Amino acid sequence: MSGLSNVRIDIDRLMGRIEALGKIGALPGGGVCRLALTAEDREGRDLVVGWMRDLGLEVSVDRIGNVWGVRAGHEDGAPVLIGSHIDTVATGGLYDGNLGVLAGLEVVESLNDAGVDTRYPVAVAFFTNEEGARFAPDMMGSAVHQGSLALEEALAVTGIDGRKVGDELECIGYAGAVAPDSLHPRAFLELHVEQGPVLEQEGISVGAVTGVQGISWTEYTLSGISNHAGTTPMAYRCDAGLAAAAAIVAARRIAGEIGGAQVATVGFLTLEPNLVNVVPEKAVFTVDLRNTDEAALQRAEALMAAAIEEAARAEGIAVTSRRLARFEPVVFDEHVVSLIETSATSHGMSVRRMPSGAGHDAQMFAPNCPTAMIFVPSRDGLSHNIREYTAPDQIEAGAQILLEVALALASPQTA
Amino acid sequence: MSGLSNVRIDIDRLMGRIEALGKIGALPGGGVCRLALTAEDREGRDLVVGWMRDLGLEVSVDRIGNVWGVRAGHEDGAPVLIGSHIDTVATGGLYDGNLGVLAGLEVVESLNDAGVDTRYPVAVAFFTNEEGARFAPDMMGSAVHQGSLALEEALAVTGIDGRKVGDELECIGYAGAVAPDSLHPRAFLELHVEQGPVLEQEGISVGAVTGVQGISWTEYTLSGISNHAGTTPMAYRCDAGLAAAAAIVAARRIAGEIGGAQVATVGFLTLEPNLVNVVPEKAVFTVDLRNTDEAALQRAEALMAAAIEEAARAEGIAVTSRRLARFEPVVFDEHVVSLIETSATSHGMSVRRMPSGAGHDAQMFAPNCPTAMIFVPSRDGLSHNIREYTAPDQIEAGAQILLEVALALASPQTA
Repeated sequence: MSGLSNVRIDIDRLMGRIEALGKIGALPGGGVCRLALTAEDREGRDLVVGWMRDLGLEVSVDRIGNVWGVRAGHEDGAPVLIGSHIDTVATGGLYDGNLGVLAGLEVVESLNDAGVDTRYPVAVAFFTNEEGARFAPDMMGSAVHQGSLALEEALAVTGIDGRKVGDELECIGYAGAVAPDSLHPRAFLELHVEQGPVLEQEGISVGAVTGVQGISWTEYTLSGISNHAGTTPMAYRCDAGLAAAAAIVAARRIAGEIGGAQVATVGFLTLEPNLVNVVPEKAVFTVDLRNTDEAALQRAEALMAAAIEEAARAEGIAVTSRRLARFEPVVFDEHVVSLIETSATSHGMSVRRMPSGAGHDAQMFAPNCPTAMIFVPSRDGLSHNIREYTAPDQIEAGAQILLEVALALASPQTA
Repeated sequence: MSGLSNVRIDIDRLMGRIEALGKIGALPGGGVCRLALTAEDREGRDLVVGWMRDLGLEVSVDRIGNVWGVRAGHEDGAPVLIGSHIDTVATGGLYDGNLGVLAGLEVVESLNDAGVDTRYPVAVAFFTNEEGARFAPDMMGSAVHQGSLALEEALAVTGIDGRKVGDELECIGYAGAVAPDSLHPRAFLELHVEQGPVLEQEGISVGAVTGVQGISWTEYTLSGISNHAGTTPMAYRCDAGLAAAAAIVAARRIAGEIGGAQVATVGFLTLEPNLVNVVPEKAVFTVDLRNTDEAALQRAEALMAAAIEEAARAEGIAVTSRRLARFEPVVFDEHVVSLIETSATSHGMSVRRMPSGAGHDAQMFAPNCPTAMIFVPSRDGLSHNIREYTAPDQIEAGAQILLEVALALASPQTA
């Protein structure tokens, strides 16, 4: 790989594109709102497609609105695909998703400038509705592309505003004619901000992402009895809020007992009637469990369900639950992960292997082609937040590694 | 007292008035919404004032809209005052407040029918805005009447809908001319539904209420850090929801440790941003502590504050608090309480002494004249609920005791 490392990405050019794209849907105070398939998304797409064409890429739009541009290799064949997304959450940052797409364009432009011919094509893609903020499920475009979600099902999804994916694709002019599965990449790479605090806290430049945590989301509803806070002795209470609180405390304890990569979060909780002087009748809360190890994740799920049952039984109240989401852990390709480590180390950068705690388009490709991700630090671990920030020198490091790993995969040295 | 017990209240007439008043602001499915100083409140007031006049009472309206009607005694002097309120919460029942006022009218009509002349006058009152559902504080009218809240301050209160008490009193025609403190009762009696489960659970007919629990309401705000539920290791979290949950669990533990009459309730809790996959940044919750013993109540407050501080410190988050309400326990008059017990026992009714867990107009009178309350059972302990219910025979028992105790106080036997 070292022979190719004299090609350098241009960080100013990359930052210029990040800033230009960030102006579309810009929020007061920073950040951006570019929900999938809105007028802002169209404007962002048009800008990126224009850049793709300027760079000489051959652009395709598939039926779920995924867009890719291909830079030919001197041999035909499956391309190395660099991709991510350009939709955002309602209070998104400038980097989440956008970085992976625009760094891909920077890789292409650096190769163009350096006159480097790769053996196989290099392609850059952005996928429709990764965030899932307007239409569920998230990672919609990449899931359809890789065959884990049916195209017709995705097109029929109704969003939070009552509009349908298929109609909105037509409306913004991105209902393409190409079949999603017409592109079979040789390998898939995604550069992304970590969206967590680990790299920053440990002072490490780059994460070589080994996979994506499995995710288990469950909503629990506890049904007790609403009673007067002053007149109901403690012994007569069926307090749904108390049982929910016990469950939240249990979630933290269970995460510690399982240890390792296990995380457990109760992020959502509502009480009814939610009045200062009324014993809560109803509590609805969610439990978000994640682990890189499927067996451990299942153990966490079982412990959590048992703890909630126990808390409810102690209070004499009923429990119902509803699975909101479940993904098994995804394991990335060992060879690609080690290429990332090698590239980082060759530049004297600190690097660590780490799982991704969030879902990414890359996980849809992992079952079908060699895949890995590169993480760069997120200041204060913040993401999905207008204060999301990664410094230019950190972005430069990640983009340079992306370039080198893409080159290594597109022009493999015969052993 | 036994010589007077041949005067009997007419339960059908009393139930008829309860039903007629319950039609004003009636809710689908039962119950009633007659928020203070609304058009419904006016209609209810007009109905009750009409009944007062029909019974020959001399009606006064004071400057905070309290209304009382006086039945003369054969001596002039301070009346025995029977009172409660006719405003309701938004999903109120037919009995809370209304029972105490309408049972007072029934006492008067029974005395009229039996041709009983009392030595001192007997008066029946309803007080403005006992519930506090539209305007804070609650027990507004009785507080102004008994001098614990300044008239001008009460008139200036702005409600949840932006309207002022003074303006609304004018609007409904109940901004009276009489000074609130122009009526000095000899004694105060209030018949009320228990609003709790104790009488029903113990199979007891009547509660002789010995006082009102002291009440301490505090709102706590915990400010942590919002982070991604997947990418933030447990050790890096400052989870405001977890600290709030630990506080809720502590509230239950502290109530048990203090024991006796101590109750502790967290009825209100909100998380921000309240999303399944985001560690809560902020939790706002209330703690409602009540005890009949002031020293124990203070101990509960101190233990609770310490537990919240400890939970917050463990999670590395900040705490602020705001006192929402604080009332010391109120002790009712031993002589009046024993009259209630004696009357009940003379009819072979089961009776128990008990504190009130809820606030009532009676507590405003307790410092200034001999005061007590009579409780009758609440089915399932429910109140502030359209399913609030007390059976006619239970109401009859309470109203009969009210009559007998009022007679005993209005025509005291010279010892």
